[in-house]
Amino acid sequence: MQAQTFPDEMLSCDAFLGGKLKLFQPKQAYRAGIDPVLLAASVPARSGDSVLDLGCGAGAALLCLGARVPGLRLWGAELQPGYAALAARNAALNGLTAEIVTADLNILPPPLSQMQFNHVIANPPYFDPLRRTSARDPGRETGLAEGRPLGEWVGVAARRTAPGGTVTMIQSAERLPDLAAAMVAHLGSVQLWPLAPRTGRDPRLILVRGRKAGRAVFRLHAPLILHEGAHHSGDVESYVPLIRAVLRDGAALPFPAHG
Amino acid sequence: MQAQTFPDEMLSCDAFLGGKLKLFQPKQAYRAGIDPVLLAASVPARSGDSVLDLGCGAGAALLCLGARVPGLRLWGAELQPGYAALAARNAALNGLTAEIVTADLNILPPPLSQMQFNHVIANPPYFDPLRRTSARDPGRETGLAEGRPLGEWVGVAARRTAPGGTVTMIQSAERLPDLAAAMVAHLGSVQLWPLAPRTGRDPRLILVRGRKAGRAVFRLHAPLILHEGAHHSGDVESYVPLIRAVLRDGAALPFPAHG
Repeated sequence: MQAQTFPDEMLSCDAFLGGKLKLFQPKQAYRAGIDPVLLAASVPARSGDSVLDLGCGAGAALLCLGARVPGLRLWGAELQPGYAALAARNAALNGLTAEIVTADLNILPPPLSQMQFNHVIANPPYFDPLRRTSARDPGRETGLAEGRPLGEWVGVAARRTAPGGTVTMIQSAERLPDLAAAMVAHLGSVQLWPLAPRTGRDPRLILVRGRKAGRAVFRLHAPLILHEGAHHSGDVESYVPLIRAVLRDGAALPFPAHG
Repeated sequence: MQAQTFPDEMLSCDAFLGGKLKLFQPKQAYRAGIDPVLLAASVPARSGDSVLDLGCGAGAALLCLGARVPGLRLWGAELQPGYAALAARNAALNGLTAEIVTADLNILPPPLSQMQFNHVIANPPYFDPLRRTSARDPGRETGLAEGRPLGEWVGVAARRTAPGGTVTMIQSAERLPDLAAAMVAHLGSVQLWPLAPRTGRDPRLILVRGRKAGRAVFRLHAPLILHEGAHHSGDVESYVPLIRAVLRDGAALPFPAHG
């Protein structure tokens, strides 16, 4: 295990949520952007709830959620031992308690394999569906080989979710068809919330939530706009106030009402 | 066959495209709204192309397309003889030539079963996925029994499309997961274009297009907004100029570039 951890000189320490959270991340490999922060902000977790992050990486989504909502019981599963060790280290660094398990998605060990959670979250690697290679995540390629179909992520997430609990994922909009189909196959009350860089621009990311034993029909929401204005304006901080509050102040990003 | 046609006293004659097209439709059963008009406007057909409308009903989408683009070879397949007869009558009424075939989607007779088209279009009945009954289309319920899964519509459409040709469908946003998954399973370069009643409101309809042998990745577009303003304002005509041009003047509604 020790041999599979990242040496310190390969790591940087990055601030999230306006400095409320600090994470060690490998300099060269996958580094968390805003995606896991938005994912964590969207989860309707309350103090006392249990949360499982499937493929937690260095812990960005799980620990953002733990930093926002006190009193959660945090669990993470991560295939790669180096990332799993980082997630455990990052939890301790931020004074959070989290159980991190090194495990393949499809072979979760006990007690994880017997547990059900109030909330399961995941930010599966973004693949280029045509090239069948990872577009953004060289650090994970080794472990994931050809990559897991999103249906497997959703199936495992649904099985580990307690009745009435939620599964929330963030993903590239390119994989909407697979993800949406898997969500409605395994869960109910599925909501799809596209995230667009600017008004009128095509959404690049999607947040998707389903509820175990939910009975409402599928709902597509209006896109959430991330940036002000119609064009990119250099380096100027241009997030809309809601997104700025999520990224800088650790605010919640509640899904629209199912309607 | 004659016994299965609608008697004239059951029909109304309704104007489409600002009066450019007139359609007899049954007064009591399914009547075309704006959906088939938008569908027809979005098809990138050029003079000389062949077009098949699967489940053409009384011919609204097929004939709107024929009225907009001269010189198309129009084919329609419709399960219910009464609607098929109406579609043929409506074509003649508008001076258009169209071959209408009474047939089950899955048992298309020759020569249809051997043909491939430049464009296949469909506006499958909108079901309430939870109640498994038709939400909007009592006139078609008899024939469709429990309704065909959207995957069957897409599969048949893809088989009847020539390489490089397009399949375009319009459907309730509630059925996005099934429709999107079927489109990427059978076609390439799939584009999903949500249609929202107003800015910021959840899309209720989706236009979906795929290309036979297309190689581009799936693309989700920003919603097309149908009405001006943030709220419904009584009976006032409130469509945005583009939609008004489509509905009143028979203008085209080209999909956004695949990007």
